[in-house]
Parts: sequence; structure tokens; C-alpha cells
Amino acid sequence: MFFTSDNASGAAPEVMTAVMRANDGFTRGYGAEEAMARVTQRLRDVFEHPEAAVYLVPTGTVANSLALALYAQPWSAIFAHADAHIAQDECGAPEFYTNGAKLIAVEGPHGKMTPQTLTAALDRVGNGGVHGVQRGVLSITNVTEAGTVYTPAEVSELVSLARARGLPSHLDGARFANALVATGATAAQMTWRAGVDVVSFGGTKNGCMGVEAVVIFDPAKAWEFELRRKRGGHLFSKHRYLSAQMEAYLEGDLWLRLAAQANAMGARLAAGLAGLGGVTLRHPAPANMLFAEWDAGGHARLAKAGAAYYDMPAPIGREAARLVTSFCTTEAEVDDFVAALAGV
Amino acid sequence: MFFTSDNASGAAPEVMTAVMRANDGFTRGYGAEEAMARVTQRLRDVFEHPEAAVYLVPTGTVANSLALALYAQPWSAIFAHADAHIAQDECGAPEFYTNGAKLIAVEGPHGKMTPQTLTAALDRVGNGGVHGVQRGVLSITNVTEAGTVYTPAEVSELVSLARARGLPSHLDGARFANALVATGATAAQMTWRAGVDVVSFGGTKNGCMGVEAVVIFDPAKAWEFELRRKRGGHLFSKHRYLSAQMEAYLEGDLWLRLAAQANAMGARLAAGLAGLGGVTLRHPAPANMLFAEWDAGGHARLAKAGAAYYDMPAPIGREAARLVTSFCTTEAEVDDFVAALAGV
Amino acid sequence: MFFTSDNASGAAPEVMTAVMRANDGFTRGYGAEEAMARVTQRLRDVFEHPEAAVYLVPTGTVANSLALALYAQPWSAIFAHADAHIAQDECGAPEFYTNGAKLIAVEGPHGKMTPQTLTAALDRVGNGGVHGVQRGVLSITNVTEAGTVYTPAEVSELVSLARARGLPSHLDGARFANALVATGATAAQMTWRAGVDVVSFGGTKNGCMGVEAVVIFDPAKAWEFELRRKRGGHLFSKHRYLSAQMEAYLEGDLWLRLAAQANAMGARLAAGLAGLGGVTLRHPAPANMLFAEWDAGGHARLAKAGAAYYDMPAPIGREAARLVTSFCTTEAEVDDFVAALAGV
Amino acid sequence: MFFTSDNASGAAPEVMTAVMRANDGFTRGYGAEEAMARVTQRLRDVFEHPEAAVYLVPTGTVANSLALALYAQPWSAIFAHADAHIAQDECGAPEFYTNGAKLIAVEGPHGKMTPQTLTAALDRVGNGGVHGVQRGVLSITNVTEAGTVYTPAEVSELVSLARARGLPSHLDGARFANALVATGATAAQMTWRAGVDVVSFGGTKNGCMGVEAVVIFDPAKAWEFELRRKRGGHLFSKHRYLSAQMEAYLEGDLWLRLAAQANAMGARLAAGLAGLGGVTLRHPAPANMLFAEWDAGGHARLAKAGAAYYDMPAPIGREAARLVTSFCTTEAEVDDFVAALAGV
Repeated sequence: MFFTSDNASGAAPEVMTAVMRANDGFTRGYGAEEAMARVTQRLRDVFEHPEAAVYLVPTGTVANSLALALYAQPWSAIFAHADAHIAQDECGAPEFYTNGAKLIAVEGPHGKMTPQTLTAALDRVGNGGVHGVQRGVLSITNVTEAGTVYTPAEVSELVSLARARGLPSHLDGARFANALVATGATAAQMTWRAGVDVVSFGGTKNGCMGVEAVVIFDPAKAWEFELRRKRGGHLFSKHRYLSAQMEAYLEGDLWLRLAAQANAMGARLAAGLAGLGGVTLRHPAPANMLFAEWDAGGHARLAKAGAAYYDMPAPIGREAARLVTSFCTTEAEVDDFVAALAGV
Repeated sequence: MFFTSDNASGAAPEVMTAVMRANDGFTRGYGAEEAMARVTQRLRDVFEHPEAAVYLVPTGTVANSLALALYAQPWSAIFAHADAHIAQDECGAPEFYTNGAKLIAVEGPHGKMTPQTLTAALDRVGNGGVHGVQRGVLSITNVTEAGTVYTPAEVSELVSLARARGLPSHLDGARFANALVATGATAAQMTWRAGVDVVSFGGTKNGCMGVEAVVIFDPAKAWEFELRRKRGGHLFSKHRYLSAQMEAYLEGDLWLRLAAQANAMGARLAAGLAGLGGVTLRHPAPANMLFAEWDAGGHARLAKAGAAYYDMPAPIGREAARLVTSFCTTEAEVDDFVAALAGV
Repeated sequence: MFFTSDNASGAAPEVMTAVMRANDGFTRGYGAEEAMARVTQRLRDVFEHPEAAVYLVPTGTVANSLALALYAQPWSAIFAHADAHIAQDECGAPEFYTNGAKLIAVEGPHGKMTPQTLTAALDRVGNGGVHGVQRGVLSITNVTEAGTVYTPAEVSELVSLARARGLPSHLDGARFANALVATGATAAQMTWRAGVDVVSFGGTKNGCMGVEAVVIFDPAKAWEFELRRKRGGHLFSKHRYLSAQMEAYLEGDLWLRLAAQANAMGARLAAGLAGLGGVTLRHPAPANMLFAEWDAGGHARLAKAGAAYYDMPAPIGREAARLVTSFCTTEAEVDDFVAALAGV
Repeated sequence: MFFTSDNASGAAPEVMTAVMRANDGFTRGYGAEEAMARVTQRLRDVFEHPEAAVYLVPTGTVANSLALALYAQPWSAIFAHADAHIAQDECGAPEFYTNGAKLIAVEGPHGKMTPQTLTAALDRVGNGGVHGVQRGVLSITNVTEAGTVYTPAEVSELVSLARARGLPSHLDGARFANALVATGATAAQMTWRAGVDVVSFGGTKNGCMGVEAVVIFDPAKAWEFELRRKRGGHLFSKHRYLSAQMEAYLEGDLWLRLAAQANAMGARLAAGLAGLGGVTLRHPAPANMLFAEWDAGGHARLAKAGAAYYDMPAPIGREAARLVTSFCTTEAEVDDFVAALAGV
């Protein structure tokens, strides 16, 4: 019963097999291996965008930071939800890679910016002429840090508000597959058709060892990205292991199947918890991350049963937890968790 | 016949097996997995330094850059050979991670700084008071970019010159194992016993998929390193795959055996070339990298035979090549290469 | 009737005379001129701190940025009021000089942090281990951007909260003299006796041409400050003109007399406005900056009378203005302003 | 007898008078004062370039750094003579403002790059693809740090070599007026007509208190410059004192007359020294800076006579000095110096 994070799982067997296979023999490196050309083509197909530039990096933090650095100047404001990963969980990596851009916390319930809160933030920042930072980039996280999702229409509405002021948009898709599965959207609908300029396309949390693609819809940005990636120390000499992971991840829509399993287990967990008296969810949970609250005593029962997850602050008499399912979460694990919490 | 680079090889079977095994089940990430504790202990043993802080990163560029950033201020001069990897091959990553330190090119034959050239550089820089950059760090590459090696005594002499002016020292050991095998030195002799403060301990070029250890002999620097690594986007959530590689690499001295094979093939190649008329080596070649020169026509014969390597500028009528052997270079490959060059 | 800003005034005659006098002959530069030694001594006397390091720079923005860069790491959080000059009016200069530190907006009425809002911010930030930015520095602006002041006791309480978590503190004293006059505090009481580590001691807004002192109570930080100042391009070769300004500014407590005049005019303006029906102040105004609100129509009357000031957003039917007095504001100007607003 | 530096002089009386006059009354600041519009127009006239963007900053270091930051990326190589001010005397300010660009030392006799040495440097750097830094900007110092000058034809030849590889060019004109006087060139001939993109137009060393203009021939770069200047803390609120200096400096070609006086005194000094046995000049000295060598004993005689200057390393039995004249050097000072050295 492991619900701490989707990155506490290993990798999918298909991915591991591909990595093993890629080990054989000599090959060109640094992304010049043939597999990378196939990955690029495959992601262009997935995104229905034949000109997209595609690069692989090992972590979500650097995918986001390099993507933002392509579009933000050092004196830019980056608009993102107050709880966004880039704001809370990257130790200032976006500030490092942009040479000092400023993150502007946009509020909104359930981890989501709203047209109103984004407009308010856009109105508030960038009016100081040369004395203040300038409006720079919008960054949307989908699945959000609260486990909720934006529909393509919601993404499009936010992006349009940004674009009306001349701002490009980034989508942090560390859990991109989960967001697509939850909304039924295509990759194109969720990104460039909604006006998004650059995407962090996550693999690590959804069955890879450690690989994320950065998909840039304006190929004129490609060379700068390559330089920034190298300068950040993220260009792998034995790049073959990144492309092997990503190729297997995309092959036969494995990425969507893995996310579907994770989301299904999230739904099963939500349903199980709903059947228990006094258990509430803080946010809608359409994907694979739930924030649940229950009466005091649940933690002890779950600990005894061997469940692992992060607890959260809660009101007196209550307890709270973040619960994340992954592609390798089983029905039995979910059911055991619910039973343990119920004290069965 | 693949002699382009040791990073064009795949990984050793032992390493791959360990990575597969590490895939199983849930585990804590971000270096908190148990395997990382074992890696730390093992590297402390290897370096005979029970307090060393040990961290894993995926590339040599970031190992060097983070190590230097621990010791250099933005206004520091970093003294390194003019041909050093940090100076020529990292797209300014050291400048990025140090927020703008200045690399000072130290000359010297065969890719090696000498006490004289280092002293001259130290004398030349840092005399301008507040108007000029300040002396900051010494960085020594071993094996050098010319394929030569420093003995521990040579390292110690350079480090002492730096230390006499208050400068700490970094050792870029992307090919550290090859340097130890070539000199017969221990890890401790080559580093902290010679006064070195921080080491980039390479794995990628010598049989790993992509992992380098940074070994810091002053544990007070550990937390800052962790922050810098995270902020650079180099902290892996599924860190288990880094520790698995490094654990297997160290197990039973695999790392030294792999380097011994690479060096032996380098020696065999040198010997083979020496037997051909008109072939000369530009530098001594005690490890696994040779810079050879021969009469025009060799390239064509080798290309026909399917040999791969980087060619180098050469005088008229001559041709030159950089030839790198690796842990998986075979005697047959070496012999075929020599035969092809000979036109047999 | 010029109330736009205290930096729209020229300089005090005493300051200009000193600058003229300093023009004579050759002298050493870069702060090595004799006048700078006298300035250092005089500021040590003013602050009753015989070891303080003292440096001059030309703008408040760089005084703040260099002071913060001495104490903040790139991965630090800097805690400051949401409306602080460093947060709103410096185009990200603190982020630039710190290489990417993150400003944390602390709320609080009337431009002032409270022990509660600061504690909340300190509690909220820096709990993420290596994943989040680290608590770094507290920065207090006094006089605040709302024209209010902190007493030494209030400064001390905030600084103590920071210090309890290991954080040093900076005081942005662009209007430091006005704050001392308003509170009756000594320079020492307002700073190091309250635990402050570094002060931006403003001159420009209070009768100088363009000079601010950075006063650092830990002399061990002095050399780093000098390097950062030079590297920022702020070390003047003809530094004599900075030291001449500051020497005249301090001579015979001119600085306090200038601030007393500015504050007296602020009080006179407040009193005059209070005598008019329907005029309210948004914040207490103990120094030289007022935020006033009145019924619609006031702007038109004032414009006709030639008054200059910044207008502010206001509710429907009302108008609002920021009004700043300076050392050269006269009683007649104040009275004319009030009369014009009254429609007399 | 003060020959340490032209920045050890005070300011010209005309400049001081203008600064005094500018003190009167309230005015808009931050460069929005009327005087700045006149300065802009006047410099456009001087450079015969009606669209040039013109900005004022207080030091030569920041003029250079901001100018370079407009054209260099963080991963750029900046080509400059090994002895250039930006390379030796700015504590890494160019690296700071460019976020880590790399200065490439171009050799050449008498402080001047030659077409051959520049071509060699351009050939040597930027061939590494993504692995190495990229060719970025050429920076030419005129008057050079050796006191020599480039003619417009020489500037043009170097700039053309850079431009052929796509590189823009910067001219560090801390002693721009001296260079024009020495060569008889116009400002336009020395800069944009020779292909230069951006100029640091010095005032401080030639009779101002502390002001330099940055002249940018592509007005599309203007807004970025304004942001970079503010972010660096170099935007003066009481900007009137900068524009007053520059306006007076340009008025009636004062700047050229001051430089003519400095150069004339340099020529007189050169002639005087040439009349002494055993005194040699290391470099041609067409402007206001001489590097002289004489037999041991000269230093003692000059010190006794009260002469001030920087001494330089010299061969055994010889002594050397850097001697700089300025707009306020008198014939008597020069003659006294020569007499003192002669031992008269």
C-alpha cells in the first residue's frame, strides 16, 4: 500500500526492456542516435504538430526551468498558481535558469487559476514601467498540485488572457498523460490548439525511469534550447537511454494505458473512501491524486496496516493525507487501504 | 572498430543487471533509498575517507560545475589547463553554475599544467585589488584531455601551489579509474592525500549508463551541494537508478577492472601503431586515449574498413586522429584497426 | 506645489557647496580619498558602532540589492512587505544581485509587516527540505511605502522573529532620516540595537544629489561588499563627489534637519487636509508621505492651481493621491495646496 | 605633477557650473527631465545618426557591461584584447551582466588586436557545436589600455571580420574623445560607419564628475537597455545631474577641447622624454597615456619632486611607469616632470 507519490514506483516493464535493448553496441550519443529521431517523429504525431522541436531531459524540474527560460527574460514575471510545482518544489530552479525572473502567485480554489484570479494578477503586475518587472510568461500545471485538472477549454481561456497581453504560455505536464485520460482531450487540444507554446511532457511519474520531453511548437527556439540544456549539464552523452525510455513509453500508447490504470485506481480509491463515513475529499479527484480528510485515528490504523503516504495538516479532531496512485497500483492495494482506514 | 569516444559504448552488463534489479517495487526516492547509503559508504571506503559527502549526478558537466560552484565565488578565477573539458566542452556550464566565474587558461605541454605555468598564471591574475577577479579554485583534469595522466606527486605539487595562495582544488575525474590504473595510485593518494578538496568521480565513460559521483572531503559543504543540485534540476526522484549503477560499478572493483581493460586496449593500440612506419603519437598515452598521426591515405583505408573515430587537424601530407578505447573494446578491434591502417 | 516625490527636489545648498569644493585638484579615487575616511568615521559615530563597514553607492536600488546579496543565497527567501520597494519598484534588482533569490510577500496593514503576518510567512516557507527555497533574510522598509513608520520596538520584534530562525535582517532606509525624526529614535536604536545587520542609509531623497550609504555592522563582510559593488559597476573612480555629498549631509546633523523640515511639512499638510470636509488619510502619516482621499473634483481644482503629485485608484465618486513633502517644501506650498483643494 | 590617471582629476569648470545650475527647483527625474532630451539630440548630432538610442550611466564599467549584455548571450564568447579593461579591470562585471559570457583574450602588440590575431581567435572558438560557447560579440577599446589608438580603417577591418561571422561589435570609448582627437576621425567614422553597433562614450575620464553615455545605433534595443539599467541599479532618480554633466560636456565641443588639451600634454611629455638619454616608450603614444622606461634612479628623483604615477615592472637596471595626462594637466607640470626625471 504505497501512496506517497507516483515517483516512488519503478518503471514499466516495457520501458525497462527497451533500455536493456538499447544497451547493445556502439552508437552516436548526445541525441544523435537514431532512436531519438524516432522519438521526435512519434511526439510530433502525438501532438499532431509536424514542426515541433522535441528534447529529452531527465527531470521535471529541468524540463520546466528550461522551457520557462526559453520564454522569460530575467526581468519577467512568470504567472503561475501559488501552489505550482515551479513555485513550491523546485528550490528556485526557474529563477536560476531564467537568471532571476519573478514568480507571481495566482490564487484560485482547488489548485487552479481562474480567469478572474489570473486577470487580477495580470492587472496588478507590470504597470510600473521600467521600475517593476515586466509581464513575461504564463505557466499552467495540469494535472494540478491539488490533483484537479484543467479542461482544454479552461486552458484555452487562461492562455487567451495571457496572449491578449502578449504573453506566451507553458504547460507543466509532469502528469500530462493523467490529465488527458481524465479529460478525454488529445495532446493537441490540451496544448497548441489551446494556444500553449511549450510543454513539459512527463514520463518519470508515469512509468519511466527518469525522462521528460520538452515539446516546443516554435522550431525557431530549438537551438537556444539545445544550448541551454547543455549549459545546464543536462545533455547526456549516452542519450540512448533517454530515447529508449521515451520510445517505449510512446509505443502503442503505453503512456496512456499507464495513466488510465493510475487514474482508475484513483477513482477506485475515491469511491472506496466515499463509502466510509466521515471521509471527505478536499478537491475533486479526476486523476491519480487525492487529498482526503478523516476523523482522528485513521493514521494509526493505516500505519498498522503498512500504508505509506504523506500526511497533511488538518483541523483538530481530523486527519488529512495526500494519496497518489500510479500505473502499478493494484485494486487489492486500494481495497486494502480503504479497509484499513475503515478499521475492518 | 569504434574509437570515437568511451561514451559511445553502452554500459557494462553488471551495471545493467543492477538497474533492472533496482526496478522492483516501491522505494523512497531522491537519494533516500537504501542503496544510496551503501554507495556513500562504499565510496568512503574507496577514498579511505570516512567523512566524505557523496552525491550522484547524471553527467560529467554537472559534476564539475556543481563541484566548482561549491568553491568558486562569482568573482573568482578558476585555473585550469587551456584544453580542459570545463574550458572547452561544457558550453559555459561552470560560468552558469558559479554565476559568472572566470576560467583562466593555464598552458602546458601534453594537456598538463606544470608548476611553472600554474605559478605564472597565479602570479598574473588577482593582483588588481577590487578591480580584477580574485584567485578562486584550481581544477585539474586527470586523465587529461590529451590522454596523459598526472601522478599523485604531480597533483600534489600543483595543489600545493594553489593552497599556498589559499585556493582549494577540484579534480575532474571523468576518467578517474583510467588515471588510477595508469598510475597505480589509490583514490586517496590521487585526491585528498594530495590536497584535493572535491572530486568528480566518473562512471559514465567507464561502463555506466549515466552517473557520476561528486565526492566532497569537507562534509560541511554537503547541504549547500544538495541545494545546488536540486536547483540545477539534477535531483532525480527515481534516484534508485543512479545508485544502482554506482553500486554495481563499485562492487568488486568492477570500475577498476573496466578501466584496466580500456587502458590495456589503449596500450595494445599504441604498440600496434608503433609497429607501423610513419605513425607517431602526439602525447604519451598511458591510459585509453591516443592522438596519432600518420601519412595521408590512412583515413581512407580506415574508413573503408569501417573504423570510426574523430579526425584532427594535421600538417600537409599527414593525417591525425583521436582514438579512444573503452571497457568493451576488444583485442580484435584493435588489431583490425592497426591492420586496416597498415593497409594489410 | 510639487508633491510627486522627494526625489524630484534638487539637493540642499550645503551639499552642492561641498561638491563644488571637492572638485579642486587631484586626489586618489575609488573611495581612497581622505574625505571617505571621514565619512566612515562620521557614520560610525552616528550609528555608535566603531566597527561598522561603510560604503557609498549612487542609488537606493543598488544599496538594497548589494546589502541583500551579502546575506541572501541564490536559493534564499527574502521576507519583505508585499508593497516594499525591493518587491515592487526595482525591476528585479534584488533577484539580479542575489542571482535569483525569491521575495516572499508579507502582508500587513498600512505597509507594515506585523509579528503575526511575518510569523505566518516564516511558517509557510522553507519547510520543503531541499525541494523548496530556504529561509534567508528579513528586509524591513522604514519609512514604509505607505508613509508609516516602525518604532525601534517594532523593528526589534520583527527582527527577533527572524533571528529565532537564524535569519539576518536588512533595513531599507531610503527615508531613514525621516523615520528617525518621526520616532525620535537614534540610528543605533533603529538598527543594530534592534538586531539589524545591514542598513541602506538614504541620502538621495533627503537633499543629496545621488548617494546612499550601506552600513554593515559585521566588518567581516566588508571585502565581499567591495567586490560586489565593483562587479556591479558601482565603484566610482571620482568617488570624491559621493563622499563630499555624504560628508556635507552628515555635517552638523544636516540630514536630520532636512528630514525634520520634510516631516514638518508633512504634518502641516495632514493638518490642513484634516480641516477640510471629506478628506481622509488612508494611512497614518507621521513622516513625509501622505495618501489622501477626497471627493471627485479635487484633482481638477489642484491641476488648475498647478499642483503636481501622483494620483491613485479610488472608489467611485472619490479621488486619491500620494503626496510627498521634502526638505525644500515650504509652508506656502502646503497652504496653497490645501487652499486649492478646498476650492478657495 | 599628477600622472596617475585621468580619473584622478576633478571635473571641468563648465561641467560643474552646469551641475550647479541643474540643482534649481523641482523637475521630473529618471531621465524624463528636459535636459536629457537635449542630450539625446546632441549625441545624435555628434554621431550623425538621428535614430540612435542614448542613455547615461555613472561609470565606464557599467556602460561596457550593459552594452555587452545587449548583444551577448550567457553562452557567448566576447572577443577582446587580452589587456582590455573589460577583461582586466572590471572584476567580472561583463560576466555578471551577461549572466556568464566568456571573454576570449585576443593578443596583439601595443594593446591592439590585429586582423590576424582576431581571425585566429574567431577560428579557434565556437567550433564545438553545442559543447562549446558560441561566438558572440567583438569589443574594441579605443584608446587602448596601452595608450595606442585604432584608426577608423582599423576598426572597420576588425568589425568586418566579426560581422562576416555574424557578430555585432562594441566600442569601449572610455577615452573616445582622445581617440578622435588623435586620429582626426569623426564620431560616426569611428563607430557606425565602421560597422560598430554600440558605443561606451566616456565622459568621466575627460572632465566630467561621473557620466558615460551608451549610444546604441539600433533603437529596437532601447527598451531592453532601460530594463537592464534599472535592474542593475543604475537608473538615477535625480538623473538631472547626469544630463547636466553630459550637456555641458558636449556644449560647444567642450569634450573635444578637453581631449585636445590632454593629448597635447601627452605629446609634450613624449617629446620631453624623447629628449632625455635612455628614456624609451614601450608603445606609440598618440593620445594621453604613455608607458615609459628609464634607467634605475628615475623613480627616486621623481618621488622627491612630488610626481605621482603608477610604476610598472621593468627589466633589471631599468624602471617603468604609466603616465596619464588629462584635460587639466599643464605645460608646467609636464616640464617639471621631465626636468625632475632628468635630474635637473
